[in-house]
Amino acid sequence: MPCPLTAFNLVDVSNNRQEDLLIDNAHLTLYCEIETWVSKAALTGRTENFRDQPLFNDDELIQHLGGLHQTMKFSDVTFTVRGCKFEAHKAILSARSPVFAAMFDHETAENLSHQVKINDVDPEVFQELLRFVYTGRIPAIKMKTLTTGLLAAAGKYLLGSLMTACEKYLVNEISADNCIELLILADGHCADYLKRNALNFLRSFPNEVMATDGWSSAKRDHSTWLCDIQQAAFTSTRP
Amino acid sequence: MPCPLTAFNLVDVSNNRQEDLLIDNAHLTLYCEIETWVSKAALTGRTENFRDQPLFNDDELIQHLGGLHQTMKFSDVTFTVRGCKFEAHKAILSARSPVFAAMFDHETAENLSHQVKINDVDPEVFQELLRFVYTGRIPAIKMKTLTTGLLAAAGKYLLGSLMTACEKYLVNEISADNCIELLILADGHCADYLKRNALNFLRSFPNEVMATDGWSSAKRDHSTWLCDIQQAAFTSTRP
Repeated sequence: MPCPLTAFNLVDVSNNRQEDLLIDNAHLTLYCEIETWVSKAALTGRTENFRDQPLFNDDELIQHLGGLHQTMKFSDVTFTVRGCKFEAHKAILSARSPVFAAMFDHETAENLSHQVKINDVDPEVFQELLRFVYTGRIPAIKMKTLTTGLLAAAGKYLLGSLMTACEKYLVNEISADNCIELLILADGHCADYLKRNALNFLRSFPNEVMATDGWSSAKRDHSTWLCDIQQAAFTSTRP
Repeated sequence: MPCPLTAFNLVDVSNNRQEDLLIDNAHLTLYCEIETWVSKAALTGRTENFRDQPLFNDDELIQHLGGLHQTMKFSDVTFTVRGCKFEAHKAILSARSPVFAAMFDHETAENLSHQVKINDVDPEVFQELLRFVYTGRIPAIKMKTLTTGLLAAAGKYLLGSLMTACEKYLVNEISADNCIELLILADGHCADYLKRNALNFLRSFPNEVMATDGWSSAKRDHSTWLCDIQQAAFTSTRP
């Protein structure tokens, strides 16, 4: 229960009450009046302002969806990813990815058969993609080991925020050794943020990047592309 | 790109370098050596430690589930609540409520017919209960106007955190006028936190509570219950 409130007010000594202020033998004595009252809050039991607070319980929701991701109870579609089977729910997939929404909104073979075959994604990557779809989360160790695969899968299924997270992770990892590899990856999946940062790196450390095997391979196998990359990095009309 | 790092080090003047420290006409001149280097971070592009961070994207997930709550696409069960129809997904209901899980895990009439009839919940309350199930959220205005209905529905479907939120809201609203009403509500739905606080209120303000119409009605209609309540509030073996 809230406690009664108490206020200490110094007595007004400016008029006619000089006797209240005693200075005696180097001691100053202050007289004051103390007023005590019970607050309205105490009579209503109210201690905080809850009235205008919406209810949020994100953690429990995500924990429950994590449970659903584990059990996949009431699933209505099966994915076969390079031979590995994954169950899932069309409702949740469609709510999260415009690509799945398009697949399950129309009379596609996948929608009618409740079966989806995927050969261009690694099963471990697909497992993490499903985890992200159901919970919005991916563990650090998986982000670390599967970043490029997750970026490609996120691009394929238009999972924008997963793509952004992978790009940020890779931007943090750019080095002379992987700069060209990341530029190829970024170009292949329209990862503009990653591409912009890899070009910045090339512009800042041209000698280091051009001394790598990646650069030599690109010059041999993709010389036209490498010309465009250099033009983008070193001219004033930078992307 | 990260900038090259620079360090300013004062020259060590303690040995044999007194000539570096010049005091002339009240001016102190300090000689120092400046060292500049490019950090490892600059050569790898790394500016923050992303490596050990899991990916969280709760807001987007909840926004997408809010979209699903609006459209109810791919729903597989229909509720008829006092004549009002609501679509929903067994998978999500089961993940969130043990009562729905039990209903849809077995061959109940509701599960087989994909139809659930509810007459003891107000349709507006059920709409907010569904919103909570899908998004973990309830707007402030609905929490305010539907608290007692939501508490009862949360109790019925074992939505623990919604029940707790309603109890906290009501504890904040306890007054002499509603103390008995809230004690009856708490008793009816095993809302122990609310009951404990309402008993505390009765213990603190017995005169105010016992002067209300609610007290008189309870004494007339539920005298045995009121004896138990007083025993709980005023004896040393408090609940």
